[in-house]
Amino acid sequence: MKFESKIRVQFYETDSMGIVHHSNYIRYFETARTEMLRQNGYSYASMEKAGVWMPVLSVTAEYKMPALYDEVVSVYCWVEKLRGASVDLKYEVIGEDGRLCVVGRSSHGFTDPDLKPIRMKKEWPDMYEFFKKLEQPEE
Amino acid sequence: MKFESKIRVQFYETDSMGIVHHSNYIRYFETARTEMLRQNGYSYASMEKAGVWMPVLSVTAEYKMPALYDEVVSVYCWVEKLRGASVDLKYEVIGEDGRLCVVGRSSHGFTDPDLKPIRMKKEWPDMYEFFKKLEQPEE
Amino acid sequence: MKFESKIRVQFYETDSMGIVHHSNYIRYFETARTEMLRQNGYSYASMEKAGVWMPVLSVTAEYKMPALYDEVVSVYCWVEKLRGASVDLKYEVIGEDGRLCVVGRSSHGFTDPDLKPIRMKKEWPDMYEFFKKLEQPEE
Amino acid sequence: MKFESKIRVQFYETDSMGIVHHSNYIRYFETARTEMLRQNGYSYASMEKAGVWMPVLSVTAEYKMPALYDEVVSVYCWVEKLRGASVDLKYEVIGEDGRLCVVGRSSHGFTDPDLKPIRMKKEWPDMYEFFKKLEQPEE
Repeated sequence: MKFESKIRVQFYETDSMGIVHHSNYIRYFETARTEMLRQNGYSYASMEKAGVWMPVLSVTAEYKMPALYDEVVSVYCWVEKLRGASVDLKYEVIGEDGRLCVVGRSSHGFTDPDLKPIRMKKEWPDMYEFFKKLEQPEE
Repeated sequence: MKFESKIRVQFYETDSMGIVHHSNYIRYFETARTEMLRQNGYSYASMEKAGVWMPVLSVTAEYKMPALYDEVVSVYCWVEKLRGASVDLKYEVIGEDGRLCVVGRSSHGFTDPDLKPIRMKKEWPDMYEFFKKLEQPEE
Repeated sequence: MKFESKIRVQFYETDSMGIVHHSNYIRYFETARTEMLRQNGYSYASMEKAGVWMPVLSVTAEYKMPALYDEVVSVYCWVEKLRGASVDLKYEVIGEDGRLCVVGRSSHGFTDPDLKPIRMKKEWPDMYEFFKKLEQPEE
Repeated sequence: MKFESKIRVQFYETDSMGIVHHSNYIRYFETARTEMLRQNGYSYASMEKAGVWMPVLSVTAEYKMPALYDEVVSVYCWVEKLRGASVDLKYEVIGEDGRLCVVGRSSHGFTDPDLKPIRMKKEWPDMYEFFKKLEQPEE
C-alpha cells in the first residue's frame, strides 16, 4: 500500500538554482513516513513514548526532475521490506503535473531508547502486523 | 568588545532569489554568540553541563543588503546590556567588501535546566564578570 | 482579519532542547504569510511573475512558550500597517492547547525585480485594496 | 587523495534526539565537496560562472554513530570514479575521537546551465585532469 502525503514546497526550501535543495527531500521522506504512521494509528511521538525508536540506518535519493517553489508535491511512502528488527521504506516524490521528481529509500532499526534492537515480531506483534500490511512487493 | 566570527555562506543557505534566506541570519547569530562564548572560555556545551542555560527570549533582524553564495561574511557579536538574570546581544553581519548586510539583536535569560531564572551576579560571579567585559556601550 | 495556517511541527525542526528551534518560527511566518496571500487569490509565485516582490526588511520574534514535536500549531497572520510602498505583518503562533508560543512581526517592501520600490496604491490599486482589507487595527 | 574539511556541529543542526539530524550530513557533504574544489583552485561559484554545473544525481548516506553538538567533525571527501560527463564522490564523517559517524556518496553530472551534459575530457581538459588527480582507487 502506497501512502500519499501532500507537501507544499516552501520558499526557504529552494536554493539559488531556483529549485528545492536536494537535502530537503530527505526531510520530505521523514514527513511522509511519520504521516503514514500517524494515519495508521501509530504516531512516531506515541511510539517513542511506548519505548520504540526507529533510528535511520541509511538513506538514498535519486534526483530525476526538480520540484519547484509553491508546487504541491505528492510524496508516496511504503514498506519495501520488513525484517524482524528493521524495515526498509521507499519513497516517490511526484510533481503536480505527474512527473517523477525523486525516488528514495530509508532503512530503520527498531530499538529501545538505549538503541538496543527490538524483535518486533515477538515483542510488538500488533505493530509488526501493521508494518506487514504496508509492505508492497516490488513490481 | 566586538567579537568577530567568519562564516562561509553555504549553497543550501541560499534561496531562489539567489541570496541567503533571511531566516538563516538568525542561525548565523547563534553561531556567532556560541563562538564568542567558546573563544572566551565558556563553551555553551560546558555551560549547559554546569547547569546554566541561555534560552532565547527574542530576536530581531534588519536586512540591509543580501549576503551571497560562497562569500565569507564577518558576524560581529557583542553584549549590549547585561542585567542580573538576562542579557541582550547585538550582531552585525558584514560582507566581504565591507558592506553592512544585517543588524540584529537577541535577548536571553539565564536559567537552570528547569528554566528557573538564575541570578548570575550572585550565583555565578565569574561568568557575570565575563559577560560584563564583553559589554559594549552603545555609541 | 487574522488568517490562520495550521502547521505540523516536524522532527527536523526540533533541536536538542526537545523543542522547535527558534529560527524555525521565522520560516513558519513565511509559510503563514504566503498561505494568507494564496487563500486570498494572490499567490506569492504569481505576484513574482507579475513583477511584484516583497523582500523582507525586518523580522522580530518574541518567544513565550516552546512548540513541541508533532504538535499542530496555528499561525495567525494579519496586516498591522499598510503604507504606500511597504507593509507590516504580525504573527501569533498558538499551541494545540491554546497557549501563546510566539509573537512576531515582519516588514516588507513592495518592489519590482530590480528592487526598486513600487507605489502599490497607484500602480496596483487592486492589490493595495486586498492588503487594506487584511489590515487589523491594533487592539 | 582524501580532502579534509572540519565542520563545527551547530545547535540548530541537532534534533530532539540530541544528535545531528540525519538530513544535515547531506549538507555537510556539500560543504566538503565545495571546499575540496575551492582549495584546489576551482570554487563552485567560479565554475558556475564559467558555465559548468554539477547537479546532484543521487546521494546515499549510511549512519554508523551520531555526531554531537559542538563537536568538530572531519568530513573527508574524494573522487571515487570519474567518467566523461559525470563523477562519483565519496565521504566519511569522523568524530573528534576518531569514530566513524557517517559514510556517504554523491553522483554529479557535468552540465551547462541548460543542464545539457558536458564532455569534460574534451571540453574542459584542465578540469578533467584536476578531478582525475583527486580520484582515489577503492581499497
